[in-house]
Order: sequence, then structure tokens, then C-alpha cells
Amino acid sequence: MSLSMYTASVPVFRQVLGSLAAILEKAESHADLKKVEPQALLQARLFPDMFPLLRQVQVAADFAKGTVARLGGVEVPRYEDVEDDFAGLQARIAKTLAFIDSVPREAIEDSADRDVTVGSGDKQREFKGQTYLVHYSLPHFYFHATTAYAILRHNGVEIGKKDFIGSF
Amino acid sequence: MSLSMYTASVPVFRQVLGSLAAILEKAESHADLKKVEPQALLQARLFPDMFPLLRQVQVAADFAKGTVARLGGVEVPRYEDVEDDFAGLQARIAKTLAFIDSVPREAIEDSADRDVTVGSGDKQREFKGQTYLVHYSLPHFYFHATTAYAILRHNGVEIGKKDFIGSF
Repeated sequence: MSLSMYTASVPVFRQVLGSLAAILEKAESHADLKKVEPQALLQARLFPDMFPLLRQVQVAADFAKGTVARLGGVEVPRYEDVEDDFAGLQARIAKTLAFIDSVPREAIEDSADRDVTVGSGDKQREFKGQTYLVHYSLPHFYFHATTAYAILRHNGVEIGKKDFIGSF
Repeated sequence: MSLSMYTASVPVFRQVLGSLAAILEKAESHADLKKVEPQALLQARLFPDMFPLLRQVQVAADFAKGTVARLGGVEVPRYEDVEDDFAGLQARIAKTLAFIDSVPREAIEDSADRDVTVGSGDKQREFKGQTYLVHYSLPHFYFHATTAYAILRHNGVEIGKKDFIGSF
């Protein structure tokens, strides 16, 4: 038995985006309890030229959305980056989860050998679906999701690795 | 065409462990150039009750080693946690890479449906190989690898996401 392209993508994004949603809920409660301005967390960075929490979450969600769309052979939906609070990020994650669940499973299952193009112009890259998923999308996705966690942990929010791994 | 269990594991660990080795080299050069005590980086943490850089790298390597061993149906090699400098971490990564390349590819390819047991006693968990790889091992592995990166970035080492994604 082989691994299925669907199994290695949609349920994994669902797991980690679900974790992020729960972690952000804890962060919001923490801010409330400690009388911390929510923007102090949403705009927190680990270094001045890194993305703040809010952007890390947007980008993580975008990697999930873009990957599932490209593997499923459907157009990548455009989401404007308008979120500026915890509720906005929760809505962005919920919208992303609804989208990835809407892409036909069979199309994704068939995508290991499909040509996938990312970016445009000088930055355009071409992959086979399998390489795109395991060597490009998932590393980028986990990079931003973990960094979101790390920013909150660094700022004293009481979360642990179990919250990141989540349930599956 | 399906995704292969081998393709989704060994080359991915090789990619990210290779990135970690290159990032640690940059960190060592940074320490040297800025006259920073290497232990100031190796023992740096993002929060007092988180693992320091050195331990994050050890644990990331251990997830690669344990996963490939269990999927390949061979005993997990025991590495003592004796490293205390950059050279030690490079050796740990090199040893891990040599090990994961030594496990027969065919055994790993066959592992999607294999029963895998992790931990012991109350903490014992059982998985099918496929679930173990995509929902358990890879999230843990990326979690520690990204946190190692984030610790160095937070401490001013000049690295970027490209260094983390590495080459594949």
C-alpha cells in the first residue's frame, strides 16, 4: 500500500490549522486575562525583519489553500489580507478549512505526477505534485505554523507542543 | 500514481537536516565573527521552559532516526545526548543522515499499513505507518527544526527561510 496524496495533504493541513485555531483562542484568552493589548501579540515578532504573528498565520493558511488548489487542479482562491484581530484570523482559518474540504478528493489523489507551477516571472518554479507537496509546500507550511506558535510561546502564552500537534 | 512512503520520509528528513547543518554552520561563523560565546547560541531558548537550541537539534534528528527505523522495521539506534558544541551537533546530524540512508528503501516503501508503536507504558501509542508519518512524525520533526531556526533568527544570526527550505 502506498501513501495517498490526499492523506498526506488535506487532513494534515486540517490537523495543523485546527491546532493554530485552538492556540490563537488560548492567546486571545491570555491577552484578556493578563490585560494585554491583543495587538501586542498579533504584531509580535521574533526579530524586527520577521513577519509578526498575524502575518505568519495568514501565510500558513495560504500555503494550505494554494497547495490543495494546485494539487486538485482548481484555481487558487484569492483572499485579501485584511485581518487585524483574533476574530479575523479565526475566520481566515475557517474559510481555508472550508475551501480545502471542498476540493474533490479524487483530483488530489491523482496529483502525484501532475505538473504544478508556483509563482510567476523570474520566481516561477515547476514541480511534479509529489515533489511540490513534500519538499516545498509542507516545509513552508510547517515553518510558518511553528513560527506562529513560537511567537506566542516567547510572549508567555501557556501552550505546549501538544497544542501544536493537535488531534488527528 | 500514489505518493511513496519512502519519498515522503527519507528525502524530506535529508532535506531539512541538511538545512539545519548549513544553518548551524552559519550560526557558528556568526558567533566567531561577532565574538559571541558559542554556548550563548547553543543554550539559547525562546522561553525559560523551552528546550535550548542544542536540544532542539538533537530532538529533530531523533525524530528522523526513529521514524525511518520504525517504518523500515529495524531497531531504533540509541544515541547518547553528549553533544555540547557545534561540531558535536554536526556529527549528530551526519550520523543521523548516514543511518536513514542505510535503512532498506523497500522496507520503508511497504510501511503505509505497518503497525508502529511509539513510547512505552502509559505513553505508548500505536499507529499505522501512514498516520505515524504524516500526522505524528513530520509535525514533531518540523516543530523542532523550525524552533531551532527561530532561536538562531531571534538571536540575530543572518539566515532566511530559503536556508530552512534548503535544496531538494
